[in-house]
Amino acid sequence: RWLVPMIAQTRHLRVPDWVEPCDKFLFRHIGPDPAEIQTMLRTCSFEDLDDMIAKAVPEDIRLRRTPHLDEPLTESEVLERLKQLGSRNQVFRSYIGMGYYGTLTPTAIKRNVLENPGWYTPYTPYQAEIAQGRMESLLNFQTMIQDLTSLPIANASLLDEATAGAEALSMCFSAHNHKRKMFLLDSRCHPQTEALVYTRAKYIGAKVIKQSWENFEFTSDVCGCLVQYPDTHGEIHNIDELVAKAHDAGALVACATDLLALTVMRSPGEFGADIAVGSAQRFGVPLGYGGPHAAFMSCTEKLIRRLPGRLIGVTRDTHGNRAYRLSLQTRENHIRRERATSNICTAQALLANMAAMYAVFHGPQGLKNIANRVHYMTSALADSIADCGHAVNNDYFFDTIKVTPVGLTQDHIMSRAHNLGINLRQYDDGDVGISLDETVTTSDLRDVMSIFTESGIMEDEDANARLSNLPRRRLGELERTSSFLTHPIFNKYHSETELMRYCKHLENKDISLVHSMIPLGSCTMKLNAATEMQPVTWPEFANIHPFAPPSQAQGFIELFEELARDLCAVTGYDAVSLQPNSGAQGEIAGMLAIRGYLESKGEGHRDVCLIPESAHGTNPATATMCGMRVAKVRVTKQGDIDMDHLREQCEKHKNNLAAIMITYPSTYGVFDESVREICETVHGYGAQVYLDGANMNAQMMLCRPGDYGSDVSHLNLHKTFCIPHGGGGPGMGPIGVKSHLAPFLPGHVMTAEGHKFRQVSASPYGSSLIMPISWSYIRMMGAEGLRMSSAVAILNANYMAHRLKDYYEVAFRGKRGCVAHEFIVSFAPFKKYGITCTDVAKRLQDYGFHSPTVSWPVPDSLMIEPTESESKDELDRYVDALIQIRHEIQEVMDGKYPQDDNVIVNAPHPQTFVLAEEWTRPYSREKAAYPVAFLKEGKTWPGCGRVDDAFGDKNLMCSCPPMDSYDA
Amino acid sequence: RWLVPMIAQTRHLRVPDWVEPCDKFLFRHIGPDPAEIQTMLRTCSFEDLDDMIAKAVPEDIRLRRTPHLDEPLTESEVLERLKQLGSRNQVFRSYIGMGYYGTLTPTAIKRNVLENPGWYTPYTPYQAEIAQGRMESLLNFQTMIQDLTSLPIANASLLDEATAGAEALSMCFSAHNHKRKMFLLDSRCHPQTEALVYTRAKYIGAKVIKQSWENFEFTSDVCGCLVQYPDTHGEIHNIDELVAKAHDAGALVACATDLLALTVMRSPGEFGADIAVGSAQRFGVPLGYGGPHAAFMSCTEKLIRRLPGRLIGVTRDTHGNRAYRLSLQTRENHIRRERATSNICTAQALLANMAAMYAVFHGPQGLKNIANRVHYMTSALADSIADCGHAVNNDYFFDTIKVTPVGLTQDHIMSRAHNLGINLRQYDDGDVGISLDETVTTSDLRDVMSIFTESGIMEDEDANARLSNLPRRRLGELERTSSFLTHPIFNKYHSETELMRYCKHLENKDISLVHSMIPLGSCTMKLNAATEMQPVTWPEFANIHPFAPPSQAQGFIELFEELARDLCAVTGYDAVSLQPNSGAQGEIAGMLAIRGYLESKGEGHRDVCLIPESAHGTNPATATMCGMRVAKVRVTKQGDIDMDHLREQCEKHKNNLAAIMITYPSTYGVFDESVREICETVHGYGAQVYLDGANMNAQMMLCRPGDYGSDVSHLNLHKTFCIPHGGGGPGMGPIGVKSHLAPFLPGHVMTAEGHKFRQVSASPYGSSLIMPISWSYIRMMGAEGLRMSSAVAILNANYMAHRLKDYYEVAFRGKRGCVAHEFIVSFAPFKKYGITCTDVAKRLQDYGFHSPTVSWPVPDSLMIEPTESESKDELDRYVDALIQIRHEIQEVMDGKYPQDDNVIVNAPHPQTFVLAEEWTRPYSREKAAYPVAFLKEGKTWPGCGRVDDAFGDKNLMCSCPPMDSYDA
Ligand SMILES: Cc1ncc(COP(=O)(O)O)c(C=O)c1O
Ligand SMILES: Cc1ncc(COP(=O)(O)O)c(C=O)c1O
Ligand SMILES: O=C([O-])O
Repeated sequence: RWLVPMIAQTRHLRVPDWVEPCDKFLFRHIGPDPAEIQTMLRTCSFEDLDDMIAKAVPEDIRLRRTPHLDEPLTESEVLERLKQLGSRNQVFRSYIGMGYYGTLTPTAIKRNVLENPGWYTPYTPYQAEIAQGRMESLLNFQTMIQDLTSLPIANASLLDEATAGAEALSMCFSAHNHKRKMFLLDSRCHPQTEALVYTRAKYIGAKVIKQSWENFEFTSDVCGCLVQYPDTHGEIHNIDELVAKAHDAGALVACATDLLALTVMRSPGEFGADIAVGSAQRFGVPLGYGGPHAAFMSCTEKLIRRLPGRLIGVTRDTHGNRAYRLSLQTRENHIRRERATSNICTAQALLANMAAMYAVFHGPQGLKNIANRVHYMTSALADSIADCGHAVNNDYFFDTIKVTPVGLTQDHIMSRAHNLGINLRQYDDGDVGISLDETVTTSDLRDVMSIFTESGIMEDEDANARLSNLPRRRLGELERTSSFLTHPIFNKYHSETELMRYCKHLENKDISLVHSMIPLGSCTMKLNAATEMQPVTWPEFANIHPFAPPSQAQGFIELFEELARDLCAVTGYDAVSLQPNSGAQGEIAGMLAIRGYLESKGEGHRDVCLIPESAHGTNPATATMCGMRVAKVRVTKQGDIDMDHLREQCEKHKNNLAAIMITYPSTYGVFDESVREICETVHGYGAQVYLDGANMNAQMMLCRPGDYGSDVSHLNLHKTFCIPHGGGGPGMGPIGVKSHLAPFLPGHVMTAEGHKFRQVSASPYGSSLIMPISWSYIRMMGAEGLRMSSAVAILNANYMAHRLKDYYEVAFRGKRGCVAHEFIVSFAPFKKYGITCTDVAKRLQDYGFHSPTVSWPVPDSLMIEPTESESKDELDRYVDALIQIRHEIQEVMDGKYPQDDNVIVNAPHPQTFVLAEEWTRPYSREKAAYPVAFLKEGKTWPGCGRVDDAFGDKNLMCSCPPMDSYDA
Repeated sequence: RWLVPMIAQTRHLRVPDWVEPCDKFLFRHIGPDPAEIQTMLRTCSFEDLDDMIAKAVPEDIRLRRTPHLDEPLTESEVLERLKQLGSRNQVFRSYIGMGYYGTLTPTAIKRNVLENPGWYTPYTPYQAEIAQGRMESLLNFQTMIQDLTSLPIANASLLDEATAGAEALSMCFSAHNHKRKMFLLDSRCHPQTEALVYTRAKYIGAKVIKQSWENFEFTSDVCGCLVQYPDTHGEIHNIDELVAKAHDAGALVACATDLLALTVMRSPGEFGADIAVGSAQRFGVPLGYGGPHAAFMSCTEKLIRRLPGRLIGVTRDTHGNRAYRLSLQTRENHIRRERATSNICTAQALLANMAAMYAVFHGPQGLKNIANRVHYMTSALADSIADCGHAVNNDYFFDTIKVTPVGLTQDHIMSRAHNLGINLRQYDDGDVGISLDETVTTSDLRDVMSIFTESGIMEDEDANARLSNLPRRRLGELERTSSFLTHPIFNKYHSETELMRYCKHLENKDISLVHSMIPLGSCTMKLNAATEMQPVTWPEFANIHPFAPPSQAQGFIELFEELARDLCAVTGYDAVSLQPNSGAQGEIAGMLAIRGYLESKGEGHRDVCLIPESAHGTNPATATMCGMRVAKVRVTKQGDIDMDHLREQCEKHKNNLAAIMITYPSTYGVFDESVREICETVHGYGAQVYLDGANMNAQMMLCRPGDYGSDVSHLNLHKTFCIPHGGGGPGMGPIGVKSHLAPFLPGHVMTAEGHKFRQVSASPYGSSLIMPISWSYIRMMGAEGLRMSSAVAILNANYMAHRLKDYYEVAFRGKRGCVAHEFIVSFAPFKKYGITCTDVAKRLQDYGFHSPTVSWPVPDSLMIEPTESESKDELDRYVDALIQIRHEIQEVMDGKYPQDDNVIVNAPHPQTFVLAEEWTRPYSREKAAYPVAFLKEGKTWPGCGRVDDAFGDKNLMCSCPPMDSYDA
């Protein structure tokens, strides 16, 4: 009954059948075609999709009527509409600075990385053996950060410079076990960084003192400080004295800094700073109206175990060969939970890779050339402006100056700039800030100079005269003398041919969605369609500064409004904030909204957050970071909330109960029947419901959190809404809220409505540049298309579960026997034969597949989420592989192969191993490498043997290994 | 002395050093950096580049002064300039038809094929084992053409529909051994096809009779006919009677047709036609102001050995597994020479692959849906126009109608259309033609309808009313009933995920420039830079109809003028025609110019063309096609023209001598010292010099054909000027001429200057869309940069030759011991040990390398052309591989391995073979697979064992093999 109407309804209704456009997106996005859907329904004994939905989604929350969205657009229509929106953006030359700079993305990097699904579709490199390529690149990123900041450890990206500043605070605070409460925030940091530091401090119980460090007295109460270098006004200070004072008092020094400046300026590490943070945006990553960009953090050896985010390390594999891996994985928040000091998960891997490739391409000398050019231009500009009689307030600077106009008003200057299509920084004190960058040509420079002349004009001759002599260097005593990026990797790939081959060489080592399905439970690795990705590299979206006047971003803003409206329709919420740039940031924004709301009702004392023990690690981590006490709620064997325990806990904490954080469908992949009751119960105690939206892909147009009782959710746009995972980011985690929470959504310090204590990202709309992806997906699918997405996601999961059930134990099902959009397969029964689910995950690599999620949320299990974009053929291929592995397990159980020497425990089998002269395994090379026939048509090989985690953690090495170790 | 000034000179001189832009292209294009250049110079005992040039390039032709080009632009500047040029193009909706239609390129194909260097940089698949991916795709193309035309054989593309029409004439003519002279050209073919048929006929001695077939009497003088179906005016005719009449008279029937129409209309093969031709453009390939697009040709079994162009076939490899290959390779023109009836080499592989992927994505039903929609829309339009009182002249039609306006003038209609941004076809007889296509939306349709109403307005309501009922079908008795594209390949990949994986799966089977250098002599496989490629997919260049008014293509035209001007500066010629869309077409255009010139002087009887025996096969083939008699000139052992023999031949043919065709530097890779003398000698006999420009990469700004005596040359823009090879096309072969030949350059039937007997391509500017690539290259390099390109190309060749000389015999060198930009290594000495140069070519695949050119122009040799884009590291890697192979040869010579069972003769070794259970070779698997260490870091494997050519030619199979043969 339902499938046919569902498909019929997803047609454009505005034209008769025969003029229907032929490039409709629906069945390009959805893997199985209508006939396959019928077959799969039959296999699973569902009458039709309606019947399946009725069995999967609890009656009392199921939507009766599909909420309204605009009629779907075809692929060509959506591109046309995006072009229209883009044309409403105005691309000015932005010399506003504040952590965001124009940059020239080398087209070879744009084409071979940013526009290449081989780079943008892979997952976070948890499965090290099939992620060696991108880990090499992330290691390049870490090495680049370490070298430029002169600190020995750097992670593989944070979300943005401002959150990195907040993470620095947390590090200082936790390094002193939360005992030293005071934190010095130098008054010359970027305002958005300030805002996030304040926000973070408020709830963890730190006290921020904002003033200039020169006048600050370090006491034993002070855990650390954050200083910007060059500072937000462009001035550069020698911080030797700061470091000495801080260290004398036992406090840590964090330094927010600029990578390009560091190629010519003394580095934080050389001053003795303990921590450096900043953004790698200007290394080839487009402005994008605020993001996504990779932020970085580096630190001393001592602080390594407090470093948030992901850290790539060098280890060896079982054959003793060098291999890369995520180091110290036990630090990942899903382990630390309420002991976590950061909740970061999704980071900015793709952008970190772009920035690293930019450094690889330019090399140390190339980067220095760029920096020197920018510096000389800024120096020439400063002289010209001073010669016009204005006051340039900087003694020493790199690329930024702050000018007090004389004889001209600030308004006058801003309007001249505007007429030339130039944005400058407008200070409240009447000053004007100018930050130059690598895009500046001599004619750009002349234009900027002309703004400050009396007449507003500068003749070419005058400009040329000003450029005819080498300007003064203005770095004073802070010239960098140390070398950096001396590793061969940064000194080889300077021709485009070499760079292209390097990009492709790394790409081809890894498994991404271009090879095979990646059914990672809780991650929703669906199609990232080429059409959705187009606008990401259109200049009209890519080249806008986040603090450009909104009048220049009307296309973006219209798109944001439509996206927010549509997300409300999908979730049943009343308002959406697009600011959080990851799910984890969304969680913070959501919890802050709850806290703000409770405070506004005079219930600021409520600080207990109930969290089921099956929750994702970010949930307790977030609650803790938001100053909440976490109380666990037990779950049943089915993964449902234990209602008795819930009531018990509510009762116990009734005076202080602030919220519950639940995930729906549960992390066990089941639609809990009692979700409404849970919400009502918690509301009954005056508390709020935070519903983790990671599993929205099971619910679109089937049921809505806002309808069945939730107050707030984040939505991982990089899961349900098609933003590619990028090998570990970018992501977007906007939050939806019911109307009572709307006043407590994040504001931004640079906007009128800015509320400085609830800002969660550096830029007002987070990662604006990737929002068109989700917008396009929704606009092309329409309401019925989204419903179809979720329905087929559920069908695909049930079909796989059905086919696997005779071979494995499918651990959890809903009341009527259905799983949701993902399901858990238990491998516990095989443990006694020496085979773990990790072994199976590795063996899947030999089949050319990425493993499902391993041992989360249930130990000794794999959690499989196929998504709607996978065709029946691909599901069958994956199932066949798992069944074949079951046979391989059986052979071990039957004693045919030893428990410690068989294809599973020895997996994965890299090429070099199966081709070695000597072969001593009890099975053949062919059995190791080609367990199924399709592999002979083209196999994606693991890049190394199984990585040795223990060795890696014991022998931590987190930068590019010396070159001789590359020789085989 | 020279290197330093050369590098200095290539800098922008207009700004002082410190403001030099940092994104200069020069050393991104050129592989070795200045330090490596010094090292290589030293290795080769050159003092500096000057010294090398002095030794390589004969004194008497060497330029003393670098000709002027504009100062080089940086990458960002060139993109900005291209944006400006693009903004001068106006993208109208073009319903002009005539073989060119709007199309929706699926973005997944655009991104994963057209914008992917993995697809656009490979070479023609001569090395079958590392080209299985793209051959599978080309086989899909052939199968698609065979199915849609219902003819059993189809080639893997021709240059454009008009040249395909001319090829059809040649086939009919040669099928009757040139004895039947008459050829019926139905009067309703596209005018550009007509023009090319006339041109071709004139010089091969065929006589074209243009009239409608209905009134034509087939006599025994008639070799064949060409009819267009649907015809150029949109009418569709049942050609049963034509076929019967022609066949009765022993004549062949060729049918120019439309692929989209054939999804719903009876096919040429079903009528009994012998040959079908047409364009695959509307299957997802952008209009591009004329090209590049893939044309096709299919035919009956009987005609297979006359089919021009490349034909992919299915064979088996040495292990008995299925494998693809170029079938009937002996047909390739370098073998047929003066017996050739076609000179086609470079075809349109990349565009054929796009069209094939379009069919794979849509599948038969999807294509039919598109066709039906277009058809119904055209029908509704015809009714609407007729209802307005105009005469629609078509009884039966698919997507095109011809309208005689009533009550409105043609001018009036054209101007209304223009105001709406619509192009229609303007007939000389006052009629208006309209061809709809898949891009047409209901509002487009309303706009077109409105043009024909009295008021020029059509209200939405009226338009909707017209669309509310299903229009009549207008195919009459010509509805297609047979099925097509039933092969599983066309019925599997309909979701974007599946399509993307299929594209990547095929890409990853093959070797392209993204993997390693491809030093193919005479092919110049240099960098195809991402910046150069950007505009190819910008809509402002991609979406313009070739017959749109020039006022809409001002950006293109400006770019063409600059490109032509710059090519003149590089070659020393006075005028350039950009029309020829391959080198071979350029040769025809050049020879026709010579013939035209001679005729204009009353020397039309001159018809002897001297061609050295070392010439590329296209040279004699072209001369023959242009009605010339070929007289061979001997070459010395050095590959130089034998001057005595030249004089002898001149003398012998002195009354009829028309031209000489020479290649410079010679096909042996040597700068012949006597080139000036050759030119003078030939001129002395009143004949012209055609200099094949394939080797221009050795000469840029070092010496110029126009200076040392040549009258005309083609330039392969896909060699020297950076257009990617696309796996066998697209290419561009513009010709440069001295001023006396300028009046005889190609015209175009659709333009004022049209000269119908010298048109060589379907569209006025050939493959306009790829011209920005060459333009960008020249604009970014500047004069000194081009000089540097050629100099480093020569240095790289000399460096490799130097390193190899102790291991192999480098066969030819110039007078002063230098090779030019390529060189020949002889493998003859190893033949007696059972090892041929083919074996070495295959063994190189095991090293992850594409072989150099095999046994051309000298048997038992490899011709190596590294180009300037390869870094010293890469040259060394390649040389090391060749040296290692020399050691492997030595092992056989020393008897360590049998002559018939060693790593070389058994090469290549595919994965499945080295991993088989059983291993019976006298060497290890590791020796087979990993002869050098770098392969362990990531090896590109051959896709199969050595292909069995004999088996393939004996068991010809040129469509997708049945699916069961896919199971391993
Ligand atoms: C249930 C759940 N909540 C929260 C998150 C965190 O989202 P993000 O990685 O975007 O920060 C995840 C990520 O996998 C998740 O699965
Ligand atoms: C010397 C020479 N002449 C002519 C040609 C023909 O050029 P095209 O393949 O563009 O038709 C080639 C192609 O390889 C060549 O090497
Ligand atoms: O980052 C995740 O925990 O998936």
